[in-house]
Amino acid sequence: MTYAAPGAFAPVSRLDSALATFNVDKPTLVLDTELVAQQYHALKLGLGFAHIHYAVKANPTREIIERLVEIGSHFDAASRGEIELCLSQGAEPQHISFGNTIKKPGDIRFAHNAGITLFAADAEEELEKIAENAPGAEVYIRVIVENSQADWPLSRKFGCRASMVPDLFARAVELGLSPLGLSFHVGSQTRRAEYWAPVLDSVAEIWNDLKARGYAPSLLNIGGGFPAFYGDPIDTPTSYASKVMALVTERFGAVARVMAEPGRGMVAEAGAILAEVVLVSKKSDDDAHRWVYLDIGRFSGLAETEGEAIRYQITTERDFDEFGPCILAGPSCDSADVLYEKRPILLPLSLKSGDKVVIRNAGAYTSAYSSIGFNGFPPLDVIVI
Amino acid sequence: MTYAAPGAFAPVSRLDSALATFNVDKPTLVLDTELVAQQYHALKLGLGFAHIHYAVKANPTREIIERLVEIGSHFDAASRGEIELCLSQGAEPQHISFGNTIKKPGDIRFAHNAGITLFAADAEEELEKIAENAPGAEVYIRVIVENSQADWPLSRKFGCRASMVPDLFARAVELGLSPLGLSFHVGSQTRRAEYWAPVLDSVAEIWNDLKARGYAPSLLNIGGGFPAFYGDPIDTPTSYASKVMALVTERFGAVARVMAEPGRGMVAEAGAILAEVVLVSKKSDDDAHRWVYLDIGRFSGLAETEGEAIRYQITTERDFDEFGPCILAGPSCDSADVLYEKRPILLPLSLKSGDKVVIRNAGAYTSAYSSIGFNGFPPLDVIVI
Repeated sequence: MTYAAPGAFAPVSRLDSALATFNVDKPTLVLDTELVAQQYHALKLGLGFAHIHYAVKANPTREIIERLVEIGSHFDAASRGEIELCLSQGAEPQHISFGNTIKKPGDIRFAHNAGITLFAADAEEELEKIAENAPGAEVYIRVIVENSQADWPLSRKFGCRASMVPDLFARAVELGLSPLGLSFHVGSQTRRAEYWAPVLDSVAEIWNDLKARGYAPSLLNIGGGFPAFYGDPIDTPTSYASKVMALVTERFGAVARVMAEPGRGMVAEAGAILAEVVLVSKKSDDDAHRWVYLDIGRFSGLAETEGEAIRYQITTERDFDEFGPCILAGPSCDSADVLYEKRPILLPLSLKSGDKVVIRNAGAYTSAYSSIGFNGFPPLDVIVI
Repeated sequence: MTYAAPGAFAPVSRLDSALATFNVDKPTLVLDTELVAQQYHALKLGLGFAHIHYAVKANPTREIIERLVEIGSHFDAASRGEIELCLSQGAEPQHISFGNTIKKPGDIRFAHNAGITLFAADAEEELEKIAENAPGAEVYIRVIVENSQADWPLSRKFGCRASMVPDLFARAVELGLSPLGLSFHVGSQTRRAEYWAPVLDSVAEIWNDLKARGYAPSLLNIGGGFPAFYGDPIDTPTSYASKVMALVTERFGAVARVMAEPGRGMVAEAGAILAEVVLVSKKSDDDAHRWVYLDIGRFSGLAETEGEAIRYQITTERDFDEFGPCILAGPSCDSADVLYEKRPILLPLSLKSGDKVVIRNAGAYTSAYSSIGFNGFPPLDVIVI
């Protein structure tokens, strides 16, 4: 079982060349850290004075963190585990923010002892935990925003309503913390920079309300939302980032410190998954669509196909043949392990068991999201070139 | 951070006693293999002559497989990994069926060489792979059934329509395989035995059609669907299993070989997860519900809360206090990591960060379904007592 140049008839990049030469017998994510570095520089060019805090959760592969440390990135960590990873690769603690609004007291204490000074919060109880375990820390308050036009919009899980922000600022001061400013998230995979405008309007209202109350907010964390290419058009990273910054400046004027937290937008396009067709079938002779089953599914790396939210581009060795619609599913004995059914995808009609496929731009939210042993299948392999 | 007897004011079982004494600082599934053995015997009593093939995917913990081998269980394996696990614990290959309808050629060959003789299929291409890699093997054809009343109904992913069954039988014979009979699945967590009746009616029609065409089907694999207690009433395992077998006999008469594949129904009640409250908050002063965030979520063990399908019972140390509704969520920076929101659950109003909780009857589809490193959180720990 070897992978021979699927979809790479004319390799146009180092990653394509690698995909064409690797022989693997199970699903494997191939990552090019050079593409991550290129994307960092492209985003940084557009973001200007804003600090990039890479959202480690998007892909915590050690070599990615190592490369980003080398070129000066800062980091947004979701957990003690991610903080330890960044520190182990040489990141300075003052360049790591602990951005999860849901933290255990012991993990806050660990971060504080490691030298981390900046923490996220959206509730009074969280501020109390931070004050007790990281006395004097800097905090930013995460707010809920409406009007998201993201492909993977966020729920109400994170952030508080505008009405609670002044109380949380006051409570932070009472507790001896430094409330520096606000954070929000426009929603993952916000494809167009202009979609940020209504969200920034809402945040600016809260920001101005704080100023009217005598606070001097100095930190604006604009979160993530930077898109990757999954088939629908998106701006280039530099143009997207500079448009977003222009929208920020229009509304907030000069802000002492702006943070951006690209995750998907930093790493998605730096990786592709080598996979294999296991079965092509019809349920009956008059079935409208074929079913195509791959050796990778929702529980072994493609978690973001839940609700068919993220639609990966798939290339095969038969892309010169005629295409037709099919339902795409994973290999496990779990009926929820279906990738695309409501909106079938187009794949070559000649596709059959044993064919190799490449799942493009799959560097984000894949490898770390695979299960440890669902149905006895091993987690997604990762190769860094 | 220690767990002190949450919800175990009056321990009534060995598992409860264990839950009360363990000190853990991260989410941990505690399993009692003795409860698995008890459940096996209770199901076997009701199933009579039918062979129990434990669906390994429900919980592949080594000690569970070891115990089930000792007491005579057979096994349903979804993958090469699960076959290797069963063999390593002393299971006889002729007691293992390879029940996944989506298999790689190399894995079929591995199973064949290991002495496994029984394979599932629902498509022509799958039969061809089996014939090539396990020549002469016994196969059963999986059919799609309608009328499921399960709490976690299965999609169209597995099985073929009735109209295809005769063709697949004929094709199997042509390929030198032995088509023994049929399999189906009523849907996971089918709470009442009487819900099986309409499904068995459909399968009996296909069975009788095969007989009318001159085949002599001898194997009926009734799959899983055996329920666990999650709050709604269910029958006792023996009564449930014997009612199902009565429904089978009414429709199929004397069948040479009946297989049943309980997974959830075998292990769910043999385990409970120790977890912790990380944050309790409101999004605004007039928010209708509290948000309660645990240190375990959809991506670290509670995958089956997707769509709020499986509703776990949760006990706390404050269960003597007044209860109120809350939205329950996991600890990760992923907005999809919400457990119960559409139908909030009742938890004590006094619950707060640091409180211990026990997630009851969580022995199935939890540990092996947790991610390897989502958001930097480790996979669910398992302790076997």
